[in-house]
Amino acid sequence: MADELDAVVRDGQSVPDQLSMRDEDGEIRAEFVAAISKAIADENAPFLREVVSELHEADLGDLIGTLEPDERVRLVELTGTDFDFSALNEVDETVREEILDELEPETVAEGVRELDSDDAVELLQVLDEDEQEEILEKLPPSERDALERSLDYPENSAGRRMQTEFIAMPRDWNVGQAIDHMRETADLPDRFYEIYVVDGGNLWQGAVALDALLRSHRNVPLADLIDEDRRKVSVLDDQEEVARLFGKYNLVAAPVVDPDNRLVGVITIDDVVDVIEEEADEDLKALGGVTSDEELSDRVWTIARGRFNWLLVNLATAFLASSVLGLFEGQLQQMVALAVLAPIVASQGGNAATQTMTVAVRALATRELGPWNAMRVVMREALVGLVNGVGFAVITGLAAYAWFGIAGLGVVIALAMVCNLVAGALGGILIPMALDRVRADPAVASGTFVTTVTDVVGFFSFLGIATLWFGLK
Amino acid sequence: MADELDAVVRDGQSVPDQLSMRDEDGEIRAEFVAAISKAIADENAPFLREVVSELHEADLGDLIGTLEPDERVRLVELTGTDFDFSALNEVDETVREEILDELEPETVAEGVRELDSDDAVELLQVLDEDEQEEILEKLPPSERDALERSLDYPENSAGRRMQTEFIAMPRDWNVGQAIDHMRETADLPDRFYEIYVVDGGNLWQGAVALDALLRSHRNVPLADLIDEDRRKVSVLDDQEEVARLFGKYNLVAAPVVDPDNRLVGVITIDDVVDVIEEEADEDLKALGGVTSDEELSDRVWTIARGRFNWLLVNLATAFLASSVLGLFEGQLQQMVALAVLAPIVASQGGNAATQTMTVAVRALATRELGPWNAMRVVMREALVGLVNGVGFAVITGLAAYAWFGIAGLGVVIALAMVCNLVAGALGGILIPMALDRVRADPAVASGTFVTTVTDVVGFFSFLGIATLWFGLK
Repeated sequence: MADELDAVVRDGQSVPDQLSMRDEDGEIRAEFVAAISKAIADENAPFLREVVSELHEADLGDLIGTLEPDERVRLVELTGTDFDFSALNEVDETVREEILDELEPETVAEGVRELDSDDAVELLQVLDEDEQEEILEKLPPSERDALERSLDYPENSAGRRMQTEFIAMPRDWNVGQAIDHMRETADLPDRFYEIYVVDGGNLWQGAVALDALLRSHRNVPLADLIDEDRRKVSVLDDQEEVARLFGKYNLVAAPVVDPDNRLVGVITIDDVVDVIEEEADEDLKALGGVTSDEELSDRVWTIARGRFNWLLVNLATAFLASSVLGLFEGQLQQMVALAVLAPIVASQGGNAATQTMTVAVRALATRELGPWNAMRVVMREALVGLVNGVGFAVITGLAAYAWFGIAGLGVVIALAMVCNLVAGALGGILIPMALDRVRADPAVASGTFVTTVTDVVGFFSFLGIATLWFGLK
Repeated sequence: MADELDAVVRDGQSVPDQLSMRDEDGEIRAEFVAAISKAIADENAPFLREVVSELHEADLGDLIGTLEPDERVRLVELTGTDFDFSALNEVDETVREEILDELEPETVAEGVRELDSDDAVELLQVLDEDEQEEILEKLPPSERDALERSLDYPENSAGRRMQTEFIAMPRDWNVGQAIDHMRETADLPDRFYEIYVVDGGNLWQGAVALDALLRSHRNVPLADLIDEDRRKVSVLDDQEEVARLFGKYNLVAAPVVDPDNRLVGVITIDDVVDVIEEEADEDLKALGGVTSDEELSDRVWTIARGRFNWLLVNLATAFLASSVLGLFEGQLQQMVALAVLAPIVASQGGNAATQTMTVAVRALATRELGPWNAMRVVMREALVGLVNGVGFAVITGLAAYAWFGIAGLGVVIALAMVCNLVAGALGGILIPMALDRVRADPAVASGTFVTTVTDVVGFFSFLGIATLWFGLK
């Protein structure tokens, strides 16, 4: 394949289309990457420029991910203006930062000029302020101002995500004027799905979908086509709120207004899809005890440090749970079967509680769980805990009896199982709800608290009931 | 508030706009729900019809979710043709099925006729085939055929998700003809973002974005505006693949073609957003040990049964882990501190493994982890396990020594901790990768295997090393 590509270039033919980057399963072909690496080593700029200009930004990003760090920088340098800087938004932040740090500020500034403002902001925000400044001062003042304003909005706000290129028209225009305007204006946004109607001073009036424009005759006033169902967002709205709005009302774009109701930008669905994926990623990682900014390309040390804190909290709770076992040292010595069986009670409670917690965290995130149904859901979870608690009490009780031949041991573990599954259910629902109430992220902190509850209740109920039943001391 | 609404209706004024359904935080107001309940009890159809026709389908769905089961059916019946059946796609499947079961097939058929085909399919697919048939036979033949064809495609395929309403034009038309056609055709799709170019026999040629159409003069041929970056999907493609394509190439719509390359439908971004959310939901729930079809409105018994299976698997693995403890009964009796500390080793390994597994499952789902970087990621995870293993070996060793005053115990738990964190890291990455290789869903099954590894390795290494160190038997 590498040879084929070489041959193609030597013959002066065009490079095979981008499909050859991937095999039938959509995986990147090792031969393709090897050909690119070789071309970089050979400084074969014409070949690289042709490949790069034919790849979609997303594929170009994937390609960069597979290259060695120094190859990445050389690729950007060798392909110059043919390199689409939006591809850098498709790679991990760590990689993006590395590449931007190595490139000359002039090169980055030139690349940034070609981007829509939202892509430019996404690119620049990984750099620290000095580096941003160095690049921004090489841009024309109007572009610099727009980017600086966007970068001033808080992270994760609509203002950070919006693009400042949009089409606004006065309220008294009609469809014909709107279409003529679009035909005659050279620098329209790359892609747009609706146009906005404003009055003097850019005050927001409404949105008109492109299909509404295309269905209508030239003399229909724009004001008649304003879609009342379209939602606007405010620059300071959180991106998660914005994503919820898009999902709920099936939007493809939403205008962004400042506190004075002036139209300042637009957020499009592709940004929102990114937000939805990021938020899902965050919740999933948080439940698994991983910080949301951990990336696959991070180094061992960065990752180990990031995960250490969570494990340290967990170690503390594990010692707490074991100290409950420590309270019963005498009993454990008298009846070693208790030491063997205790982890089963704790583990079963922990897993049942995790089920409840997972559902609760997700329902809180999607706003399906709220004050109006909280009581009902808590009751239901407690009942589910009771039903499964009784079920597993029978199973575990019989198994423990079969194993050790002590009937009383079966009764004790059965009673402890019911206690711990109900406690786990209550912990699994009440802890996330309480965290949500105090505006902490339930996904991040619930896990530790919940399994602490089930470990402590599991050990204590099992050994406590055993002490009473067998008269141990 | 209920009184206010009543007063408004009595005065013959219009109902306050939909904002009054929610308070400032976006939560549904209890007073609003109470007013609706009362109107349903009073059979106040004019009031309900006005409220319902003013609500967005998403809000109407949320409202239905807060009502009692029999009120929901009455609401649909009382509001008749003003009720937008797409609102039923916004509620849990369990609720949707309950409502559809209670309604007359004629009522449902009438509601379905008003829907786009994708919404109709989504609505009907919760019913069993007999019920579907009963409703479908009340529809006009052409609509019935289209819905039956879509329902025949496999669940989660593009064919199921697509809508069959789209705009296709011959290749030899120009922009002017396209615009005139749209102005003159009465039953265009509700909302569209691109038009499709076909040749005789509906064979797919390409897509033209609406903004490209609006930028161009009337005499430009459509063929010149075809966007080569637009991707098409096949009816049998999995919805998850389709979602990945949309996310990657920033699509808002994609044409769906049959195996003969004939254009048969279109998938729009709003459906894809639903898919992305569903898939995120599924992964999250799977990792938490909950089946993906569990819904907040399910009954206690349904939920308990759904969760039981996972807990049963877990119970088996807990017994397996405890049987390792059982092997060392003699040692535990001689040195009860071992029984107290053993769960700490297992728990710390389990949590470290869960971190690795979470990252692996997510990276496999997003295709960030593949054959090209597998080796590097496995090595890295093993090193992270080693680094944190050494860190926690020191901490736990000192803590155990401080607690029991036996230096050897500190050494033993430290060595076991290193073993178990490395084992956990390897299990956490290799098990999801192996499951993915055999085309099983890593999110569903990894958890059980992984914690079994860390429980067994944790208990065995700790007690085994202790046996050797202290010469126990």
